[in-house]
Amino acid sequence: MSETATALSLDDKLTAARTASIALAQASTARKNAGLEAIAVAVASGAERILPANELDLANGRENGLSQGLQDRLRLDEQRLAGLAAATRDIIALPDPIGTVLRGSTLPNGLQLTQVRVPFGVVGAIYEARPNVTIDIAALALKSGNAVVLRGGSAAENTNRVLVELIQGALASVGLPADAVQTIDEFGRDGATQLMQARAQVDVLIPRGSANLIDTVVRESKVPVIETGAGVVHLFLDKTADERMATEIAVNSKVQRPSVCNALETLLVDAEAAERLLPPVLAALHDNGVTIHGDERTRALYPDAVPTTDDDWATEHMSLDLSVKVVDDLDDALAHIRRYSTHHTESIVTNDMATANRFLAEVDSAVVMVNASTRFTDGGEFGFGAEVGISTQKLHARGPMGLPELTSTKWIVRGEGQTRG
Amino acid sequence: MSETATALSLDDKLTAARTASIALAQASTARKNAGLEAIAVAVASGAERILPANELDLANGRENGLSQGLQDRLRLDEQRLAGLAAATRDIIALPDPIGTVLRGSTLPNGLQLTQVRVPFGVVGAIYEARPNVTIDIAALALKSGNAVVLRGGSAAENTNRVLVELIQGALASVGLPADAVQTIDEFGRDGATQLMQARAQVDVLIPRGSANLIDTVVRESKVPVIETGAGVVHLFLDKTADERMATEIAVNSKVQRPSVCNALETLLVDAEAAERLLPPVLAALHDNGVTIHGDERTRALYPDAVPTTDDDWATEHMSLDLSVKVVDDLDDALAHIRRYSTHHTESIVTNDMATANRFLAEVDSAVVMVNASTRFTDGGEFGFGAEVGISTQKLHARGPMGLPELTSTKWIVRGEGQTRG
Repeated sequence: MSETATALSLDDKLTAARTASIALAQASTARKNAGLEAIAVAVASGAERILPANELDLANGRENGLSQGLQDRLRLDEQRLAGLAAATRDIIALPDPIGTVLRGSTLPNGLQLTQVRVPFGVVGAIYEARPNVTIDIAALALKSGNAVVLRGGSAAENTNRVLVELIQGALASVGLPADAVQTIDEFGRDGATQLMQARAQVDVLIPRGSANLIDTVVRESKVPVIETGAGVVHLFLDKTADERMATEIAVNSKVQRPSVCNALETLLVDAEAAERLLPPVLAALHDNGVTIHGDERTRALYPDAVPTTDDDWATEHMSLDLSVKVVDDLDDALAHIRRYSTHHTESIVTNDMATANRFLAEVDSAVVMVNASTRFTDGGEFGFGAEVGISTQKLHARGPMGLPELTSTKWIVRGEGQTRG
Repeated sequence: MSETATALSLDDKLTAARTASIALAQASTARKNAGLEAIAVAVASGAERILPANELDLANGRENGLSQGLQDRLRLDEQRLAGLAAATRDIIALPDPIGTVLRGSTLPNGLQLTQVRVPFGVVGAIYEARPNVTIDIAALALKSGNAVVLRGGSAAENTNRVLVELIQGALASVGLPADAVQTIDEFGRDGATQLMQARAQVDVLIPRGSANLIDTVVRESKVPVIETGAGVVHLFLDKTADERMATEIAVNSKVQRPSVCNALETLLVDAEAAERLLPPVLAALHDNGVTIHGDERTRALYPDAVPTTDDDWATEHMSLDLSVKVVDDLDDALAHIRRYSTHHTESIVTNDMATANRFLAEVDSAVVMVNASTRFTDGGEFGFGAEVGISTQKLHARGPMGLPELTSTKWIVRGEGQTRG
């Protein structure tokens, strides 16, 4: 099958994925788990085929001036392959969402109504130069009963081709349709464009990667998109905040992993408590390597701060830089968040119940927290196991997305000849 | 407020809607219900203002050659106003979806996690010449805590302006923000185009109307769309089908209201039972005024049938025309449905459990039925009360959409100072 793959048109591949999705939707959990185990084995023992292809991509990357960061993401080695196999096995342990009954009732006329989870059908994924996403998305799609069409970008084309061949072999080895996982890298940019136009052939499209990639897919796709977005994450220190808790949560939110979307970007402090809280909190952040950017009132209390610009408030630094602002009160904090939040995660440190309740009710974000580090917005931390991404939009899924978010639903109606009067 | 409305830019109106949505999201169920009652009173007693504006739109329509059908949809009278008021009051009786807890847990680190229903925020609606949709969508949006921006089309511009003024007055009279309901008809086609580009300002866009309108919105919108679609609805008579049940369900599915999306369009019959079932079933359909379009094998048993063309199988007749095909077996029926279904509703008449189970599992439609009329795919019949529409796509909502489908969710995290290790 893999030998002839390059001779197929993209349309052929989408059709084959659809056909495979029909069989996959009916596959038992046991068989899907057997497929995941076969993929894990193929990846863990596939270095001989995978690493030379990966070396070819890396050589092309060096020639084409691929950045060091992207080269690092692209690089596979024995250890990373073992990690990918382990991640695939983690998905075996997760509950299968397919067939879950969500709602049901018997209508007055005796009709029995049941709403059940079903796979989307064919999922498309567009990402960049990260072969780990190939395994990751294929495994998540398989567990949720979906066929998947992967567009991983030309920089990883050789690696992805070998990985998909291994996945297809693994699926076939347990009696699942090999066509359930397809790559369309060989069609280049046209392939991505065509995938975004493939309404009816593809049920949902998931972009993973840079803000630029996600924006492009959201703008151009005619296929429904599950969007994952950037995080300009805020922490508000209320006037009742405990100094030690404020310090620990601010430092953890900012420092624990500054390059990810749930890391803190802007610290807001109630003016009434700024003198008490800012010096110790900012000193602790500074001791942890954070560069403080402060507004005028912040700099009055912490003169070492870099003056903020208007751009700072809307910036996802993804580095050890933090914007700090003194606000008049809760209303001022809520107004600032309303204006600059990307609706990912916001947290408050407070000991006042009414303030906590207003913050939870009025902040319009995927995750709103009281007295907790923003770093907890995460599928793993929430107990979902695998994470598809973190949705910052409001349709279909909001916040960390696990396997159930890769499914749709279907209404089953059982009757005994009922007609409508 | 209404006097200055035409002086506002569309951007101003979207901003005002967003501001209003913030207050509306916090409104109690009692206050929202009071708003609905005030709208019902304003509509029921508003004939003096509404009907002259409606007459103006009708006069313009006649001048511009608006079809009789659209003129009828556009026309309001005392009785229709009373009907709109009654429909608004029906929504008062429905449970408020906002604040419902969907999932929750206490994590091992003590964090308390709760997923709750919240409004989308600002909902956009694009529809055509149907002033009843203005009241309907405004009422559904209000109950679900959403502000709404309405683009009802130039043909109903005067009627909609008066209706929105009455709604805004009703909202203000109970202390709700009048700006929560806006019309942008005065901006013409540019207004619709701008609405479809208004990402971040509008959270979700709902097109209601013709397949053409819906297609345009789905193709052009950058705002996420909840799509409602056409129904090429199938009924399959299995070889074990009871003759009387088959006849009653076929007649009811086709005849009870042929112009709607859940009405039957194609009847499939297992070849083994065609001789037994087709003559009585088709005779009953004929007696009910149905024109039978049959394939060759159908015409062998029912010579009066009009020969089918390939187009028939993909056509939503929305009339008393029915396409009929004899299929080899269940697999052939499933293959036909897979090719031509619009994924709305399909039903089987059978007494064979294995056949029923395969049909339910393998047909990929929003609603799949056994031994029931396809006319039951309906929010009212499902017990949802108001119906926003019937989604034939797989993201966010599938099948009849009630109030909960007009909401998003939000994760609330309550901690006591937890940080991530």
